[in-house]
Amino acid sequence: MKKLEMIYEGKAKKVFKTDVDNQYIVDYKDDATAFNGLKKGTITDKGIMNNTISSKIFQLLEQKGIKTHFLQKLSDREMLVRKVEIVPLEVLVRNYAAGSLTKRYGIPEGTKMDTTILEFCYKNDEYGDPFINNYHIKAMNLATEAEVEIIEKEALKINEILIELMKNINIDLVDFKLEFGRTPEGEIILADEISPDTCRLWDAVTHEKLDKDRFRRDMGKVEEGYIEVVNRILG
Amino acid sequence: MKKLEMIYEGKAKKVFKTDVDNQYIVDYKDDATAFNGLKKGTITDKGIMNNTISSKIFQLLEQKGIKTHFLQKLSDREMLVRKVEIVPLEVLVRNYAAGSLTKRYGIPEGTKMDTTILEFCYKNDEYGDPFINNYHIKAMNLATEAEVEIIEKEALKINEILIELMKNINIDLVDFKLEFGRTPEGEIILADEISPDTCRLWDAVTHEKLDKDRFRRDMGKVEEGYIEVVNRILG
Repeated sequence: MKKLEMIYEGKAKKVFKTDVDNQYIVDYKDDATAFNGLKKGTITDKGIMNNTISSKIFQLLEQKGIKTHFLQKLSDREMLVRKVEIVPLEVLVRNYAAGSLTKRYGIPEGTKMDTTILEFCYKNDEYGDPFINNYHIKAMNLATEAEVEIIEKEALKINEILIELMKNINIDLVDFKLEFGRTPEGEIILADEISPDTCRLWDAVTHEKLDKDRFRRDMGKVEEGYIEVVNRILG
Repeated sequence: MKKLEMIYEGKAKKVFKTDVDNQYIVDYKDDATAFNGLKKGTITDKGIMNNTISSKIFQLLEQKGIKTHFLQKLSDREMLVRKVEIVPLEVLVRNYAAGSLTKRYGIPEGTKMDTTILEFCYKNDEYGDPFINNYHIKAMNLATEAEVEIIEKEALKINEILIELMKNINIDLVDFKLEFGRTPEGEIILADEISPDTCRLWDAVTHEKLDKDRFRRDMGKVEEGYIEVVNRILG
């Protein structure tokens, strides 16, 4: 397989065409951003760690019947994926209060929610990925009602699987962000990545943060958090 | 009937007990606030005008089969209503883009939406009545799923009735805010008010604003906007 021209560069990943139909290569970078790009930095070897963690998690999800874009880990930083058109929605799933749930509604950080909370944000850098609801999605033609229904169901299933996975390695899954894509055949599958960049992961005993909040909040030991997750996941 | 002690004072209305079981008196004030109370002022005779407009609209809605808290207009500023416990949700219905739809998502003001947009905000002054979704409502125990379903259905029915009413008096119904209440028997009915304080109303031909945006944005001729709506509604 040949890696061809880059077709997209995001904050944490590059995507390349290949000479195989409908297959792309994702290249994980060490760049870290927060607060809609206002804060920028580098986390040493983050690309290697996130590729490792995401590959492992996508494989597990596939085993549990979730359809993902993952095909194969190619190298330290490279993942082979199915070509999709990304649905312009960030899907947030929250089991404990943190981040905007605390800022917007005053729910104290760490509060266990009785009900899993699912939120959609409109992927739009100019407007800071604003929070939207199902009516906005329909009015702005971001996805069909049938697609939104699939995405909600899949996100909640993925949550159950990830809670269990994390529990087994002594981590509380506080919240996480998913993105979905449409295959050329119009099927909705999980895309993007699942890593400490996109999840809040707290040690179940010490409640120590093992995710990008260490970078966002200048808490130090940023790399150590990611390394800890890699080690526990590879277990 | 005797007007007894005040049990609640909001930004634009006072509510009094009466000596009749389960009946309250709402007293409409001239006070105007905007931006979560940051901007304060008075609109001369607003209380009289909003009581007139709301009474007329509630009566029409009742005729069309919508259950409301309205019983009777008692005087210039007073309305007799059924006692309810207000559901802590602001229900926003949007037919054209304006306000937060423009600010948050960049949809140009005045754009006609293909789909009516319904939004819930959590009535909470400290947090600025933040936008929430159905998962937050459930997780924060603000209303049951059955109540939310009734509220959504009623709000969309009310929208159809109000669009028609406004069309007949040459006004475009841009958007509006509703509040619902629970009767002592647990029934969900429309409460609060429907007036230029809670609706965006534009002249259908000139697109002149005839609502509280004239106050919010210091556009002048604030009272004139309200008077125009009263005159057209009383027809």
